[in-house]
Amino acid sequence: MANKIKIAVIGASGYTGSDLIRLAVRHPKIEIVALTANTHAGKPMHEVFPHLANLGLPDLVKNDEVDWSGIDAVFCGLPHATSQDVIASLPDHIRVIDMSADFRLRDAQTYKQWYGVERTRHDLMQRAVYGLSEHYRDDIKDASLVACPGCYPTAVLTLLLPLVKYGLIDPDQLIIDAKSGVSGAGRGLKQNTLFSEAGEGMSAYAVAAHRHAPEIEQELSIAARHDVLVNFTPHLVPMARGEFITVHAKMKTGLNPIVCHNTLSTYYQSEPFIFMAPQGTLPATQYVRGSNKVMLGVYADRIPGRVILMAVLDNLVKGSAGQALQNFNLMFSLDETTGLEQAPMFP
Amino acid sequence: MANKIKIAVIGASGYTGSDLIRLAVRHPKIEIVALTANTHAGKPMHEVFPHLANLGLPDLVKNDEVDWSGIDAVFCGLPHATSQDVIASLPDHIRVIDMSADFRLRDAQTYKQWYGVERTRHDLMQRAVYGLSEHYRDDIKDASLVACPGCYPTAVLTLLLPLVKYGLIDPDQLIIDAKSGVSGAGRGLKQNTLFSEAGEGMSAYAVAAHRHAPEIEQELSIAARHDVLVNFTPHLVPMARGEFITVHAKMKTGLNPIVCHNTLSTYYQSEPFIFMAPQGTLPATQYVRGSNKVMLGVYADRIPGRVILMAVLDNLVKGSAGQALQNFNLMFSLDETTGLEQAPMFP
Amino acid sequence: MANKIKIAVIGASGYTGSDLIRLAVRHPKIEIVALTANTHAGKPMHEVFPHLANLGLPDLVKNDEVDWSGIDAVFCGLPHATSQDVIASLPDHIRVIDMSADFRLRDAQTYKQWYGVERTRHDLMQRAVYGLSEHYRDDIKDASLVACPGCYPTAVLTLLLPLVKYGLIDPDQLIIDAKSGVSGAGRGLKQNTLFSEAGEGMSAYAVAAHRHAPEIEQELSIAARHDVLVNFTPHLVPMARGEFITVHAKMKTGLNPIVCHNTLSTYYQSEPFIFMAPQGTLPATQYVRGSNKVMLGVYADRIPGRVILMAVLDNLVKGSAGQALQNFNLMFSLDETTGLEQAPMFP
Amino acid sequence: MANKIKIAVIGASGYTGSDLIRLAVRHPKIEIVALTANTHAGKPMHEVFPHLANLGLPDLVKNDEVDWSGIDAVFCGLPHATSQDVIASLPDHIRVIDMSADFRLRDAQTYKQWYGVERTRHDLMQRAVYGLSEHYRDDIKDASLVACPGCYPTAVLTLLLPLVKYGLIDPDQLIIDAKSGVSGAGRGLKQNTLFSEAGEGMSAYAVAAHRHAPEIEQELSIAARHDVLVNFTPHLVPMARGEFITVHAKMKTGLNPIVCHNTLSTYYQSEPFIFMAPQGTLPATQYVRGSNKVMLGVYADRIPGRVILMAVLDNLVKGSAGQALQNFNLMFSLDETTGLEQAPMFP
Repeated sequence: MANKIKIAVIGASGYTGSDLIRLAVRHPKIEIVALTANTHAGKPMHEVFPHLANLGLPDLVKNDEVDWSGIDAVFCGLPHATSQDVIASLPDHIRVIDMSADFRLRDAQTYKQWYGVERTRHDLMQRAVYGLSEHYRDDIKDASLVACPGCYPTAVLTLLLPLVKYGLIDPDQLIIDAKSGVSGAGRGLKQNTLFSEAGEGMSAYAVAAHRHAPEIEQELSIAARHDVLVNFTPHLVPMARGEFITVHAKMKTGLNPIVCHNTLSTYYQSEPFIFMAPQGTLPATQYVRGSNKVMLGVYADRIPGRVILMAVLDNLVKGSAGQALQNFNLMFSLDETTGLEQAPMFP
Repeated sequence: MANKIKIAVIGASGYTGSDLIRLAVRHPKIEIVALTANTHAGKPMHEVFPHLANLGLPDLVKNDEVDWSGIDAVFCGLPHATSQDVIASLPDHIRVIDMSADFRLRDAQTYKQWYGVERTRHDLMQRAVYGLSEHYRDDIKDASLVACPGCYPTAVLTLLLPLVKYGLIDPDQLIIDAKSGVSGAGRGLKQNTLFSEAGEGMSAYAVAAHRHAPEIEQELSIAARHDVLVNFTPHLVPMARGEFITVHAKMKTGLNPIVCHNTLSTYYQSEPFIFMAPQGTLPATQYVRGSNKVMLGVYADRIPGRVILMAVLDNLVKGSAGQALQNFNLMFSLDETTGLEQAPMFP
Repeated sequence: MANKIKIAVIGASGYTGSDLIRLAVRHPKIEIVALTANTHAGKPMHEVFPHLANLGLPDLVKNDEVDWSGIDAVFCGLPHATSQDVIASLPDHIRVIDMSADFRLRDAQTYKQWYGVERTRHDLMQRAVYGLSEHYRDDIKDASLVACPGCYPTAVLTLLLPLVKYGLIDPDQLIIDAKSGVSGAGRGLKQNTLFSEAGEGMSAYAVAAHRHAPEIEQELSIAARHDVLVNFTPHLVPMARGEFITVHAKMKTGLNPIVCHNTLSTYYQSEPFIFMAPQGTLPATQYVRGSNKVMLGVYADRIPGRVILMAVLDNLVKGSAGQALQNFNLMFSLDETTGLEQAPMFP
Repeated sequence: MANKIKIAVIGASGYTGSDLIRLAVRHPKIEIVALTANTHAGKPMHEVFPHLANLGLPDLVKNDEVDWSGIDAVFCGLPHATSQDVIASLPDHIRVIDMSADFRLRDAQTYKQWYGVERTRHDLMQRAVYGLSEHYRDDIKDASLVACPGCYPTAVLTLLLPLVKYGLIDPDQLIIDAKSGVSGAGRGLKQNTLFSEAGEGMSAYAVAAHRHAPEIEQELSIAARHDVLVNFTPHLVPMARGEFITVHAKMKTGLNPIVCHNTLSTYYQSEPFIFMAPQGTLPATQYVRGSNKVMLGVYADRIPGRVILMAVLDNLVKGSAGQALQNFNLMFSLDETTGLEQAPMFP
């Protein structure tokens, strides 16, 4: 075990924490030495997540019970607003992969406006790197703190950044119609995520008011080199995992969908996790479930000059814990796919 | 029973046929005298649909075994292309409510282009009325043949026709992002509608190539008074019933979403089946399941000048059998809600 | 409206309350004059249940805001232990149909043992009639207080009472393997009924410790004329509605499954809601969903002398609100099927 | 690649074949060199299973196009009755792991009775080993042909064999109430496994007539040392994967459930895949989904002398492809868990 990297998971009682553990237990270079969850402290992990029984995991403890000196890296799966103080309290030698929203928005004012709380740790924000692996790979390698993107931004930005960067689509007319499985809402108790309410039907939520919108806009604005506003309309779909993004875009004059397709295909051709839907196959979340993959698709619209762009991923994997592990691999100079080779599970 | 209207259901072994029967058995003015289904002819209905056991239904027979002389009205639930000849063969006194696609498209060329077969019965098309109940009510009352709209067009047109008619939104920039439950694909055996394949995930299908697009365009073009092309992007969602339509539209200069909301609200204020989502409630298919209702919603977009429009309905009821029954009520001068008073089933 | 029966629903913010309303709004002899729900008092019904919008329902109020003098009957959908005091406070002229567990168990000691609280209102218990409609019909007609059975006991007793009464099966060897949809757990917030946890999998719960066991035993003991203990093993299945009961029983010597089938068939032959699975059809909850029906089945076991018995129903209808309405019909001398004619909804 | 074991998958277009591939691509000692599927021959794998895109898999071919000389082991995922001739045609050096039913039943007469076809290859049957890994481990290690058990028998026998062997329960009174997810029915097109029919409800099927019954009886008879008949009552549950077995058993006089629990716990204490439900946790298929694990539980019945026994597994993994891979590991002297370390996926 001498050459393993010792990790802790803070906030191990939520879905992002548990899916990180699901993946990490099979990572050949990771040793899980601490799991924290304040309300469940003192319990064995299998009491909180029975599917994680018999994996030799440490019991859950409070943050202040952990001996941080022997820990190399921390994955943080806390809710937003609670992460920043916890991360600030960690020793300097620890490299942090944060799966919360606290360090995603570069602008403190935007953070406060959308999350309703102050960001007090400007020092941490200074050194935080936005953890969209394929697009900030070099920065991530050297980072001490990586802010993993939200699940929606991961899908949307993977799909749109190359097209906006190269000026193929109009960044000011982007219609992002998003659909998510219910696990995206977390393990907290809410009436609208009860099986009887969320099942056998589909609803809209947070229309034009979802916190992932400013995050998407932040990154698209950088790519477009001017401030961008997007339509972002999320829906809740009766499946536990999975996210389906349909973007309706206006191409720059004279372009066609084949150019868009080829641009994405070329851009990601060496990427292990990003791939185009094979000819004849339309994207489906079933095809990436449980894996760190993103499937992209490009289709002609009936309205001339417009294009339909699609991306699917598993919100708990590439949309959260998987990308966190991918970033960990980058930070510790491991092969980027280590521990993430799992093929999608279908059916 | 003397004053009951005698009906037959042609094609009673599919979902639209069976849902028509589910509703019709509780209609106080309907007597079901014949059910046809060629491949299942000779069987009692409960062998084909056990949930319809013990309702006193006649056994399934072939079309040519029916004594049409005693029948007042026929509901036709056949697949497209097979309806026209069957309907043509019926005696003249029978009023027909067709739930297939054969007489929805006014233009024979468009029909052939999208359905791949000729429309041979131009005579029938001459007298067919498009059965969008709230918009063609007067024509339907006198019609001998009503072509009920497709499920998607019913939702989309209910949502958009008033706004296009009054010039509130730009008809040439309509993005229609549509999501349907699996029953919309019918009872035929297809791999992608198996439980193991369609469950726990979401897919796109027939992108920019769905047969309901020209139907939507036909009616919007009339309202807009010029030829309209729409974006129409359908998705398959893991629920049996339900359809969720999200339209992303550009408002005419100077307008705002409140005007759109009020226009729809006013337009449909006397309608028994169409209503606006109450303040604080976002549309969900769960709220209309099993009923003939359509819930509409209007929301501001983050992109100035744009509006997000939503409609939900049950594809088998208002999207098919329910609207067929509503049209029947109109044709026979009954209260339009007769047999359709069922409140939605939730959960 | 003069000849309508005026009802109130106490506890209208739960699933049994809302499903009672779903059915009652279509009942030709019912006028809903009051809906109560203490925590939601003051709200319109559509804020609590959007699917009940636009039905002309009164707003939710607290119990003490209701003018009980004009009310003829009350449906009580409160949780157990809270019903008895509320019911005791109602004026004497009101006939009560209680859907809670407070008056199901005749023995106060058994009630306390299983529900953990005292039954203080012995006076009410004295006059309470057990509301298994088909088996206590005459008592229900004259009752001022009807205690509707639990969902599981309704299914189990409908299936077993005739066989035990006539001595066809051994009442001391009954294995009741029960499976329920998630709505049976109510609308309260529990982790195990979240969509992400209850979906795509099946679990056991309350094994040999479910409160419906003593209720089943109470009624079977009467039929068997001696104290009976049963195996009762409930499971949670990923569907909102529906209950599937599989009973594994030992027949009395010399009997065979055909005798059991014929006995049940004959026993219920005039019943509008109870029917045998047609030859060639195995029971499925899909076949009774949304309706007040119970489908029964009888099958030979591979072990000689044993029989497999099945019953399916919709836990919110025949298992709760529907049977309550059936009892109401009996109490007010209406046709027993009034307001309950809805055919099952499939798919 | 020199030291990898070269495998082929025959019948790679079904769910057992595809799940075998899902697991095998991550097995460090396996090289997949051929995939066969007669009707899909010539297609790349991603056309048949898009979730297996980009894994470097060989295209599908016909059996007779494969160069068998370079192949060490074959996994056979064909339907029953078709396997025996295909396996017989393979060169002798190939070791075969058969996931079909052709060599599970030792008695040719029983095979014919339940599967309706002759078993012609008695020679193969002579050397076939029943592949219940934990119970036939030594035989499997040396086998040239392993007949992997059915999904139900795997769960039932894992649960019951130790208790029957040690005489703790009465083998002649076993009530096996079984519940399966829909993928157990395979990828073939059947009306009852359509999403709209199998969803949101539960049904019984093949009551006392399922082909896994004689397989269970065969093995229990060996353990009991006399011919055993069992009750076996399968149900279909709306989930893709997962199997829940509830056995209602009579204990031998004087025994109690704790003895049964301890016996199972001790029996399987060194097994990597079999474990008892932790105290306070009831079995759920969600806890083993996607993994090769079996969770067992033992509970007291209300009827004295009886015990309730439970087992859950993923029908496509431990119930089929996972156990096949476990047997492969045994046959090739690899660590038994190689390629099977994946933790369950929840939610």
